Amino acid sequence: MYTLYYSPGTASMVVHLALLEIGADYQLELVDIEQGAQHSAEYRKLNPGGKVPTLLIDGLPFHESAALLTVLAERHPEAKLIPPSCTVERAAWLQWTVFLSNALMASYRLWFYPQELGAEEHSPATRAAVQRKIESVWEQLETHLSAHGPYLLGHTFSGVDLLLAMLMRWSRNMPRPATEWPALRRLADLVRARPSWQRLYELEGLSAW
Amino acid sequence: MYTLYYSPGTASMVVHLALLEIGADYQLELVDIEQGAQHSAEYRKLNPGGKVPTLLIDGLPFHESAALLTVLAERHPEAKLIPPSCTVERAAWLQWTVFLSNALMASYRLWFYPQELGAEEHSPATRAAVQRKIESVWEQLETHLSAHGPYLLGHTFSGVDLLLAMLMRWSRNMPRPATEWPALRRLADLVRARPSWQRLYELEGLSAW
Repeated sequence: MYTLYYSPGTASMVVHLALLEIGADYQLELVDIEQGAQHSAEYRKLNPGGKVPTLLIDGLPFHESAALLTVLAERHPEAKLIPPSCTVERAAWLQWTVFLSNALMASYRLWFYPQELGAEEHSPATRAAVQRKIESVWEQLETHLSAHGPYLLGHTFSGVDLLLAMLMRWSRNMPRPATEWPALRRLADLVRARPSWQRLYELEGLSAW
Repeated sequence: MYTLYYSPGTASMVVHLALLEIGADYQLELVDIEQGAQHSAEYRKLNPGGKVPTLLIDGLPFHESAALLTVLAERHPEAKLIPPSCTVERAAWLQWTVFLSNALMASYRLWFYPQELGAEEHSPATRAAVQRKIESVWEQLETHLSAHGPYLLGHTFSGVDLLLAMLMRWSRNMPRPATEWPALRRLADLVRARPSWQRLYELEGLSAW
């Protein structure tokens, strides 16, 4: 049994999608980040960094969405979200998962939370630089997907595509959204057509892509 | 057979340490980053992001140091660098690996490469903010290790401790190095006493901690 502490449309989304893909039994606990509930003493007992998501596995709390995706994928091999150990595909899956987490999620924090760089608002130069960091990742992914897609691992969908689609979604109000790159757009279309994505929109009350 | 494209003391270090811990057969290829060899067309064929390390596994290139650590650990279970699948310890290992990669490696890039934020040098406010981001990670790890250490998984050494020790080392010239936190210092001392660490210093020609 799993319990997911989530907030609609945030990094918890990929964990929620994985739970739906797996067909696991789970409970949802809303963390009201507009009200700052992620900083409450109670929540910090589960997640000392004060971030969403947290996943309880057999009552114990774990965090880091890319890690939680990996854990769920490993525990439910029948869902084929992750390739078997010691295969080339497994190495590629782990590479893309870490790459997305490191190169993209961390840059998004800078984009959305200028205060983490000590400013209420970014200077135009800093804002342009962070935008460039994010867009350079789209360029790199586009090159890969247009040669080896439509999914990150090629012809076969896997859990890391859920992570990428979630991160693409976060760019929807940026000057140049990720969907402007055609191979990325194709991947997003494939993931958005999955029943898990549609069910998640209902459960989390999401509307805009 | 593995081939590691490395540069002394950089993110390739944790992959090199893992190869030594495993006792695997491997070759080293130096990437001369002072000369910009990571940006050469030849190297970018292996690593489109132009970053070190790259690991060839059966002739195929993979990147992202935290992913390469995970791949090597999985392929050589006898070295016990990663706990078995579907255990609580496995979930903790993956959590810490992604956390270190996401929260710490990405912040170090900002510290060491101000140009990625569009400036030759950081403003004092930005510099202080990046320092705070890094130190807040030491605080979080110190709290964990002083309660549950000496290693990240408790009483047992694992591969994620290699990653943490490498990242601690990168702080040695910062205003407040990670070794000033006592439980972190203890973990670094334990990792530095391992034969793999000492052998790596010889092979990579490192001296300063």
